[in-house]
Amino acid sequence: MGTIDQKLTELGIVLPTPAAPIANYVPFVLSGKLLYISGQISIGVDGKLADAHRGKLGGTVDREAGQAAARLCVVNILAQAKAALGDLDRVARLIRLGGFINCEPDFIDAPAVMNGASDLAVMVFGDKGRHARTTIGVASLPLGCAVEVEALFEVNG
Amino acid sequence: MGTIDQKLTELGIVLPTPAAPIANYVPFVLSGKLLYISGQISIGVDGKLADAHRGKLGGTVDREAGQAAARLCVVNILAQAKAALGDLDRVARLIRLGGFINCEPDFIDAPAVMNGASDLAVMVFGDKGRHARTTIGVASLPLGCAVEVEALFEVNG
Amino acid sequence: MGTIDQKLTELGIVLPTPAAPIANYVPFVLSGKLLYISGQISIGVDGKLADAHRGKLGGTVDREAGQAAARLCVVNILAQAKAALGDLDRVARLIRLGGFINCEPDFIDAPAVMNGASDLAVMVFGDKGRHARTTIGVASLPLGCAVEVEALFEVNG
Repeated sequence: MGTIDQKLTELGIVLPTPAAPIANYVPFVLSGKLLYISGQISIGVDGKLADAHRGKLGGTVDREAGQAAARLCVVNILAQAKAALGDLDRVARLIRLGGFINCEPDFIDAPAVMNGASDLAVMVFGDKGRHARTTIGVASLPLGCAVEVEALFEVNG
Repeated sequence: MGTIDQKLTELGIVLPTPAAPIANYVPFVLSGKLLYISGQISIGVDGKLADAHRGKLGGTVDREAGQAAARLCVVNILAQAKAALGDLDRVARLIRLGGFINCEPDFIDAPAVMNGASDLAVMVFGDKGRHARTTIGVASLPLGCAVEVEALFEVNG
Repeated sequence: MGTIDQKLTELGIVLPTPAAPIANYVPFVLSGKLLYISGQISIGVDGKLADAHRGKLGGTVDREAGQAAARLCVVNILAQAKAALGDLDRVARLIRLGGFINCEPDFIDAPAVMNGASDLAVMVFGDKGRHARTTIGVASLPLGCAVEVEALFEVNG
């Protein structure tokens, strides 16, 4: 069992079977040492989007639910990265997370929501999980989900 | 005539003359093997943004019009990539598309709109056109257009 | 004093002390020759977000204030790049700027606002500052700021 897999077990995180592509795009592309992960939403291990993770921050979704959704986006990112690399120990570094928060126009607290994603990345990867980040509040997201996160990793040869 | 040019001809796609930069930015930057294409909107071969491609999904723009706009964004991406590379056969892979859908806050179907872009990419490049993708619904876009798409390619030395 | 530092002095630009990270992310990541800068808002040299740079374009923030905010985002990007590289002369090229304009749904002039960022980049770096760019109008931004800009640089070995 790899170091990162062990850490996931310690954290009680079960990676879902990564979703098969449902359109003419793919969940990840590896180009040289750069691994691009498509925007992931907070689909659960049961393959469903929980009602608690639908809607808008500043509306029906509160900060804690948004943070939980952001964490789940990272769990799905990890599942895709594992599918891409075979072994998460091949991750050299998480370079960047892009966080998209579905919110009301007067919501100004998107970074706190996105911390749910960033905190989990650092719990899993340690210092290698410290990433550059851009967080924005968006008008809508696929399926009406509250949070979407995309990722870019550097991987070892 | 290159393989991809031939494919474009088969598909009846005429690449427009790529728009000259109108500000202090450029339509593409090649850095090593990575070709970054600036966000493209659905300007037509006539150099104009059709009325059908202005407005918001979930408002005056329906899904089919949005998909057509997304396709046209990719046509403009191809025109810029050709200007950058000389020959589209130098494309090793489409790494990523970023899709920005101008929409009402309750619109949840942005991925279906973005499929207009993804489907064309795969029609043109085949498996090399399968890309990572992030799609979000945004509050507004330049000129009031319905769709904007940015791209990242890996190119052969 | 480096060439770029000299240019900054000529332009009367004082780089602020780059903000220390306040969460589990970092302001920049260098991966190979690629330097990713986290989304920067228009925090001033005094460490504060000016009231003039809060709110929405098409609402209480006019084009000129938006352009000033976009410029200030680039100043903060430069401060982070300098912290990352030690010397801004190591910048080989500004590859890409991502511009996020907090705006009303009917605002269609985001590119003009973003020109505040692009123009400063070219004033500072000359032709090496000409970048690919994606500009979108977003529903909200951190702290209610009007503009956020992220950057990607290519650096010399």
